[in-house]
Parts: sequence; structure tokens; C-alpha cells
Amino acid sequence: MADIFDNLIKNYGPIGQYRKRAHGYFAFPKLEGEAGPHMKFRGKDMIVWSLNNYLGLANHPEIRKVDGDAAQEWGLALPMGSRMMSGNTNYHEKLEQRLAKFEQKEDAILLNYGYQGIMSTIDAICGRHDVVVYDAECHACIIDGLRLLPGKRYAYKHNDVEDCEKQLQRAEKLLESQPQGGILVITEGVFGMAGDQGKLKEIIELKEKYAFRLLVDDAHGFGTLGKTGAGAGEEQDCQDGIDLYFSTFAKSMASIGGFVCGPKIIIDYIRYNIRSQIFAKSMPMPYVIGNLKRLDMLQTNPEFKDKLWHNALYLQKKLKESGFNIGNTNTVVTPIYMNGGVEEATTMVKDLRETYGIFCSIVVYPVIPKGEIIFRIIPTAAHSEEDIHTTIEAFKATKKKLDAGEYKSELIPDMADEDTRIENILF
Amino acid sequence: MADIFDNLIKNYGPIGQYRKRAHGYFAFPKLEGEAGPHMKFRGKDMIVWSLNNYLGLANHPEIRKVDGDAAQEWGLALPMGSRMMSGNTNYHEKLEQRLAKFEQKEDAILLNYGYQGIMSTIDAICGRHDVVVYDAECHACIIDGLRLLPGKRYAYKHNDVEDCEKQLQRAEKLLESQPQGGILVITEGVFGMAGDQGKLKEIIELKEKYAFRLLVDDAHGFGTLGKTGAGAGEEQDCQDGIDLYFSTFAKSMASIGGFVCGPKIIIDYIRYNIRSQIFAKSMPMPYVIGNLKRLDMLQTNPEFKDKLWHNALYLQKKLKESGFNIGNTNTVVTPIYMNGGVEEATTMVKDLRETYGIFCSIVVYPVIPKGEIIFRIIPTAAHSEEDIHTTIEAFKATKKKLDAGEYKSELIPDMADEDTRIENILF
Repeated sequence: MADIFDNLIKNYGPIGQYRKRAHGYFAFPKLEGEAGPHMKFRGKDMIVWSLNNYLGLANHPEIRKVDGDAAQEWGLALPMGSRMMSGNTNYHEKLEQRLAKFEQKEDAILLNYGYQGIMSTIDAICGRHDVVVYDAECHACIIDGLRLLPGKRYAYKHNDVEDCEKQLQRAEKLLESQPQGGILVITEGVFGMAGDQGKLKEIIELKEKYAFRLLVDDAHGFGTLGKTGAGAGEEQDCQDGIDLYFSTFAKSMASIGGFVCGPKIIIDYIRYNIRSQIFAKSMPMPYVIGNLKRLDMLQTNPEFKDKLWHNALYLQKKLKESGFNIGNTNTVVTPIYMNGGVEEATTMVKDLRETYGIFCSIVVYPVIPKGEIIFRIIPTAAHSEEDIHTTIEAFKATKKKLDAGEYKSELIPDMADEDTRIENILF
Repeated sequence: MADIFDNLIKNYGPIGQYRKRAHGYFAFPKLEGEAGPHMKFRGKDMIVWSLNNYLGLANHPEIRKVDGDAAQEWGLALPMGSRMMSGNTNYHEKLEQRLAKFEQKEDAILLNYGYQGIMSTIDAICGRHDVVVYDAECHACIIDGLRLLPGKRYAYKHNDVEDCEKQLQRAEKLLESQPQGGILVITEGVFGMAGDQGKLKEIIELKEKYAFRLLVDDAHGFGTLGKTGAGAGEEQDCQDGIDLYFSTFAKSMASIGGFVCGPKIIIDYIRYNIRSQIFAKSMPMPYVIGNLKRLDMLQTNPEFKDKLWHNALYLQKKLKESGFNIGNTNTVVTPIYMNGGVEEATTMVKDLRETYGIFCSIVVYPVIPKGEIIFRIIPTAAHSEEDIHTTIEAFKATKKKLDAGEYKSELIPDMADEDTRIENILF
């Protein structure tokens, strides 16, 4: 028999095993100053491309005023208790109604945190006879919701509608022997890593041949896509085909929490059966009021989204002109694909930060195949063309060093206190 | 093959099926005004016994000032991103160090929300060969963490140390065939429904005979128990035997979020492997600062805990003197046990609110056996003796009506728009 703690210490996990070298720099870095495109990292000025503050609302003076005033007026404690027990208010209901209307759905339910909210939504609506068909690259919060599922789940290859159909056929076949079950398809409006939109329209067209309900996590689409910013469903002109639409407030809304909306009778069902909301505290009042203000500004200031898209398209154009591979993004999320080992990637990140003052996230093995590197650039409405120019120049210079093998043999000196080399880090 | 939505509509769940009658009154009631012992419900003044604002911090002027100032200074958006990616700050680390020190542990990790925090902690530390032995009455957040567990779990009868030992033997037996696994015991410092403390000392004594680690959820003990308010481990003088100590900030701290603390090497492991924190936004800055202030006040103002206990003991004494059965509580949580059907219980709750201005929660079938009712009274430091007197008189008067059968045949008129009767509601 083993000891639980000894087991953890023996195998510290994919990122944890490199914590000594990575901590405070590649993992758990501290960005200082107001949330925006210019912050400090270890005392140095950075152009920051890591925050999902798409519309620049995080630090908008009108938002900041409402945030501050709401906390002054209500404090941070109110309401105490879960929505169902003692944590319901007119403000919560008002925000729900506003969100439902914006998304052209009958009703919405607020979620105190996005992660536990969608996880628990999946848990609430699926029983042991149901089958979930889902995109293989769905976010961790969906995967963890599916881990609670007592029924079967079939993943389809990322954004592969043909494979989605195959999995629907597989689900139908299974349901022949348990006809009391139904099918739920789950995908995302925007895949946050590669920036490609989920093929919602094509998936919804499959409803003509297969009976299923569709849940869409539109974390990155809400506020950034569609004429009014209502997200990927509006963008693809198929909002009605989305049965349950979810978004977090952690990105375009620059806040916490989230919501799910759909038919009133189903949202009411969720309201009375969603464990993460029944057994945890209601969204705090200043956040409800802050989110009402954010939604208001998002709806009445289309210029934020215009500016975001101007920046994103300009950045993407300039990157392509400079010979960078940005893959198949059709959103503002901008990945830059390169080839190289994990060590080279991390050394390049360090050079970008130390020499050029560019702060962005990278993705490496084991998240993606060995030898590949993705730099993920998140443009926002608050960035300037000058930020973009500086960044492109920095990427050009560092790419040249990467190609010349200059990052190859270097160890990362600041964090190195072990002899082993970094083989896989995700950050 | 069925439709997922049709299935939900057909079976609306244990509470949801009565939503039309219960909504806005028994479920999702709106308490208005500052969080405290005196609030309004439907325009009427209430003495409120439903909020876990144990120390009265929710509305303390010093807390309110820090809450408001922190939101003014930082806004509600900061930091953007998860701790690991871009959401780490010196304040987060300071609060972790302060909490660890207070709980006499080496290190602590902040959790953005209590529910997903403990759920994900269990997920992070247990593998498929491990066995969890847990108290059958653990809170939903623990149960949902266990639902993610790929390994086996054995429940022991609530607070039954003998049965706990039996389950440990069962776990040891299983581990003979999978010796790479270990045992984790999970219980609570205080069981929030009945108010009895988990038998931590006795469970820890079992470590002399069995090898296991102990995780304690002390949501209701933190701030209310122990000489310094450090919780049930301090109260029972066995803090060292608790390997991982968890509490939410949603109760004594009158805030959101939580923490788990223990040996540095294990907390660091959790930090690098806990999915709900890696894949969701960091605790917002005003809450970090607000929680620092709350911890400060909790530590430097023992009179809050003294006043809470004065109120609780006075309430419990008066209830017992008046012939009420308050069970085996040895904490400030004060249940009142009565006999009666669900309809009588709800009618009595309505009478308590409408006639006497007393707002409290009840628990009925199917959470507890048919024919039993529990009123749960949560005293706080902010209540007065007068509140207690008024409440006792109201309970005496309504109990008399209950015993006389006056609540028996009455339907609840306000919410009634169906012919079926309320059979089971939990609130």
C-alpha cells in the first residue's frame, strides 16, 4: 500500500515537474499595473498579449467607476448564500433578462463562476441514458463536465463535421437499446487556442437528419463576433439552432461568472437542478451590477468591437506579410506557429520579454506535437498600431535567432536550479 | 430515442417540480437591505437566521470601507487570467501565507470559488488506484469531487468512527491487489445541517492503526471554533493530524473563494495540477484584499467570536428551556427538530415570516425522513438578545399551532397555482 502524498511527490505532473525552473517566470508570472496592453513584468515595461480583455473594458473609466461605486454601495459580501436559499435579488434577475434578450433566447441563468457553471450545466441536463457527442478540442471545463456524465460520450475530431455525423450515428445506434436517452452535442463558438470558429452552422444542419440538442460554449465569441457582439451564433446566422448558449464573463466582459441561456422551461429546470449554483454562493452584487454595466457598454459601443477587429486584422495581415504562419484563425485570436523544441521555445519567450518587452503565452509539447510551438497573441481594442509594429519587429528578430539555432543550446539561466532540462511546459 | 429537453420537462427534479408554488417565496426568495440580522422580505421586516455571516463581518464598517476602497483602486476585472497564466500577484501570495500561518500549515493555495476549489482539490490529489473513505453526510461539493474520482470510494455512517474503521479495513483489503494506491479520508469540521463537529480527533487516532491522509472541509468551523478561530482542528486540539485543511470564505469571512493548506510540497503539487484554478480566472483583486482585511479582523477581534458564542449558547439554552429539541449540536449551528408533514412545515414557515417576521431555512423530506422537519437557525455576532427573545416566542406560538394541527389542511395560497400538493421541498 502506498501513501497518497508520496505518490504526488514522485510524479509532480506535466507542468509541476518543472516548477522550480518555471515558477514566477513561465508559470505564475506577476503582471503589475492596470489590466491592459501595457503592464510591468519584473519591473520591466511589457506589451501584453496574454489577457482576454478583448474590448478593453477591464480598465475603461466608466466601468471602473461603476465597479468602485457598486462595491462602495453594496460591499463585497452581499448577497450571502446561494440563489435558491437566500442569495437572489432583482439585480440578478435583471441581468439574466438582459442577457437572454441580447442572445435572443427566452431566459438565462447566471453562473457564479464560468468553470463550475458549465461543468454543472452539463451535469444537470444529462442523465445516464443520454449520449454526448463533442468536439475533441473542447475546453477543460467541458471535459470536466463530461467526466461527471454517467452516460456515454463520443468525441469527434476537431471541427470535423463528417466525423461529428459518424459519432451521431454511433450515438443513435447505442440509443436503440436505451431509447429513453437523447443526444447532446457540445462544441465551442471559438476555439481559444487556434482561433477557429466551431462549425456551428454545419452542425446545426445535421439536425435535419439527426435528433439532438446543441450546447455551445462561446467564451471567446461573446462580445467579439456577430453584428451586435452576440457571438458565434449571430456571426454564422444560426443562433436559433443553438439550444443552449453559454459564455463566461471572464473574457470580453472582463469580469467573473457566466451565464447559460435557452428556452425558459429548460433554463428553469437548470435553475432548480444545477448543483454548483444550489450549493454555492450567488454571484456577488458588485459583479452583477458591474456586469450589467459591461453588457450595456458592449451593446452601445460597437466601436470597441470595431477597434478590436481593426487591430486583429492589421496584426494578422502584418504577420502574414512578414512570412509568419498563423494557421486557420477566423477570429481575433491569433496563433503564430513555429517549429522548435520546448527549450528553444522557452528561451525565445525569455528573449521576447527581456530584450523586446513582449509578453505573450506559448503552447508546446505535450499539448501539441513535439517540435511545434504556438505563440498565442490576444489582440484587444486597447492595443495601438504601434504596439503591433513593435511586436512584429520583435517576432521577426527572434524568429531569425530561432532559425539560426541561437536558442538551441541555451539553458534558461534565471530559473535553472536543476540539471534536468525542460521537456514540456504548458503556459 | 428520446429528446434531452423532453426528458427534463417530464421530470423536473425534486425541488423543480414545485417551482410554480415555491418560486420567490420558499425557493429563490429575495432578502433586501444590508446583509445582517435585520432585512426585508417582500417589504416586511424580518429577523434573519439564514445567513452564514457568523462573525457579523459582512456589514462591518471597516470591512465595507476596505471592500469599497479596494474596488475603487483595482476595479473588479483585475487580474485577468488564471493564476498560472497571467493572474498571479503579490497580494494573492500574501493572503496564502497569512492563511497558512493562521492554520499552522506550511503553505496554502487560494481557490477562486469554494465549490469548484475543493471538488478540484480532490480530483487533483486522487488517482485511479487510490481509495477515498468519507463521511456519508459530506457536503455536495465533496460528493461532486468524489464523482470525478476514477478510484473506489467507501462512505462511512455519519460520524461513526467504528464504521469509519470498517471502511478503512475494506480499503486496505482492496489495496492489497493494487498496492500503488493510498487512502484519503474526507470529513467535515462542522456538519452544517445538524451542527455536530466531525470526530476529527478520533479519526486521527485511527492513524496509529491505518495509513491514510485526512482532508477536512471546515467551512462552518473556520472563524467560529478554536481559541483563535482557526477551526475544528484547533478546537479539538488535533490540527497537526489534519493533512489538508480546507475552508470556504463564504461563511465566517462573508466573502467568496476559499483555500486549502497543508505541507508545502503537496500544496505546490496542487497549485500545478488543480484544474479549476488552472483553467479558470484567478480570485479578483478586491476579494484578495477584502479577504486579507477579514482575516485580520477575525484574528484581532476575538470579541466577534465571543459574541457569536454568547448568542448561540443563549439561543440554544432558551430553546431547550422552552422544550425544543435541538439535537446534538456542539457548534453555533442550531437546528430545531419537529414532527410534521412537508405541507405543515411550509405553512409554518409562511406563518413565521408573515405573522412573526422570522426568516429561517427548513429542511424536509426527501433530505430527511418523511414526517420530520428541521428548522435551521444560524446565529451571528450581529444578532441581539432581543432578536433571540422575539424568535423564541414566535417558535413557541407556531409550535403550538403545529401541534394543534392548525397547519395541517391549509394549502399555501400565495404560490398555489396547481392542484398537486407540496410533497418534498428542500430549502
